[in-house]
Amino acid sequence: MSAPDFATFADACRRDLEQALERWLPTPPDCPSRLHEVMRYSLLAGGKRLRPVLVQAAADAVAQGHPDARTLALPAACALEMIHTYSLVHDDLPAMDNDTLRRGRATAHVVYGDALAILSGDGLLTEAFALLAREPSLDSPAIAQRKLLTMALIAASAGVSGMVGGQVLDLQWEGAPRQAVIDDDLARLQDVHARKTGALIRASTGAGAIMAGAAPDAVAAIDAYGTELGLCFQIVDDVLDVEGTADELGKHAGKDEAAGKLTYPALFGVDGSRRRAEGCVTRGRAALDRAGLSGHLPAVLDWALTRRT
Amino acid sequence: MSAPDFATFADACRRDLEQALERWLPTPPDCPSRLHEVMRYSLLAGGKRLRPVLVQAAADAVAQGHPDARTLALPAACALEMIHTYSLVHDDLPAMDNDTLRRGRATAHVVYGDALAILSGDGLLTEAFALLAREPSLDSPAIAQRKLLTMALIAASAGVSGMVGGQVLDLQWEGAPRQAVIDDDLARLQDVHARKTGALIRASTGAGAIMAGAAPDAVAAIDAYGTELGLCFQIVDDVLDVEGTADELGKHAGKDEAAGKLTYPALFGVDGSRRRAEGCVTRGRAALDRAGLSGHLPAVLDWALTRRT
Repeated sequence: MSAPDFATFADACRRDLEQALERWLPTPPDCPSRLHEVMRYSLLAGGKRLRPVLVQAAADAVAQGHPDARTLALPAACALEMIHTYSLVHDDLPAMDNDTLRRGRATAHVVYGDALAILSGDGLLTEAFALLAREPSLDSPAIAQRKLLTMALIAASAGVSGMVGGQVLDLQWEGAPRQAVIDDDLARLQDVHARKTGALIRASTGAGAIMAGAAPDAVAAIDAYGTELGLCFQIVDDVLDVEGTADELGKHAGKDEAAGKLTYPALFGVDGSRRRAEGCVTRGRAALDRAGLSGHLPAVLDWALTRRT
Repeated sequence: MSAPDFATFADACRRDLEQALERWLPTPPDCPSRLHEVMRYSLLAGGKRLRPVLVQAAADAVAQGHPDARTLALPAACALEMIHTYSLVHDDLPAMDNDTLRRGRATAHVVYGDALAILSGDGLLTEAFALLAREPSLDSPAIAQRKLLTMALIAASAGVSGMVGGQVLDLQWEGAPRQAVIDDDLARLQDVHARKTGALIRASTGAGAIMAGAAPDAVAAIDAYGTELGLCFQIVDDVLDVEGTADELGKHAGKDEAAGKLTYPALFGVDGSRRRAEGCVTRGRAALDRAGLSGHLPAVLDWALTRRT
């Protein structure tokens, strides 16, 4: 049997993810029913599911297609999607980006109010770590070690040195005066991107590799790949915010310019930004080649570059 | 050398906690400096430090005073204080309880704005799990197993079936019509208390016991003790909200009645509430006696009953 193409693989990952989320998310009466409803509203609204697909693509590449790796990595895939979702719910709040449209529907606080939006985000973040630790008494020492390494990686990437810190810097620098020297602007832009979206994308590739039992040099290669993928993804995100429409994107377009945000197109134009994204793809492929890794990982790079939504 | 009295023990625990928080909290430039400032503002504002003291008292009782147990339990003590603090910062937000005074000073959102208050809470919660997982490559299999069990316990207690769920129910039932039958009100009140404060207090005793390597029956006894302690603490909290002043409490008094909240004094009066708290102390001591555990754990019960702040 030949390996499935990337689109088939990604669809299978999304199906596994949604089934696992339905199964593992605490339900009423343990979880208050209104809270359960708002968590599901945000979590099961579709979306690209990039992070869970990446977790599985990394696990699959390391294990050369052995299906056990994907089973072992599934809690991490769910946890990363839960953390990503909580960050969107909190970022959309009126006190932050004040956004009303996400994944093609009204944002959580518009439908359920600010209090439940905040608490559902807190719940998703906490339950993500509950999932990563789940059923510890069944773990062999090797699996327990992988779980702790994965948790340490995900917490560091989602925390104040990573994603949360990136959102703070993004709010802080929004509309701040442009630097005289383009290098300073670029350094600032890269810092925000590396933290706000890059860190969790890197953690996704790392978590998949670690849960599949990758050796340290394979983990390092996948981390280099994840860094390039995260940057490519974010550059294209900036470009789509200029070129796309709300209909295509499922969220409001043109937000960055309206907010006076520093972006790749603002610094390098659309063509210059696309060339930079292509450079990421080249370097990401090279990192994989050096470690002899492939599977669906190169296809994720191509998708990140050419996606329209 | 005789064992220190409880006040001396608790002071040592608080000192260890604050030093560890200073050491382990990510600092600039990894953490944006403004974010670091607001996290420290909330985290190092003093407070009773009940949860960390409890972690250490449980670890100390299980290990019969052997100091290694307290070192092993210190990350869990820090994590529980960080989770407790994040929950206060989020609960105080205008979208939730809208409170302006906490631990004798202005609440975080009053000083730093809602966005930084939300993000500092998100940061504290995430870094709590980073701390629980820290340095996984140094762990023996036995310690790795204890860490995973502790993490699973803390995440379940802080999550949607525990603390976060309790806050949702508390907001939902605030000012709701009183039931015709006192038993229904009591069941509702107990459910909110058990989740909102009880769960994290139980998790504190459990985490200390697990990290110190307690056998399953000792963990169960300490869990029964923690349940009684948590209930006693909350009943006294309700009473102090009626009897205390903002000066004594470091937070606004009389809030519950003003908000139309269901409380123990509202249901049973002050004297009836105190008798119920005394019942918790008796049952908590009995749970310890059955397992042959003591150390400072009985003294924590006495403190919870007689405290004035």
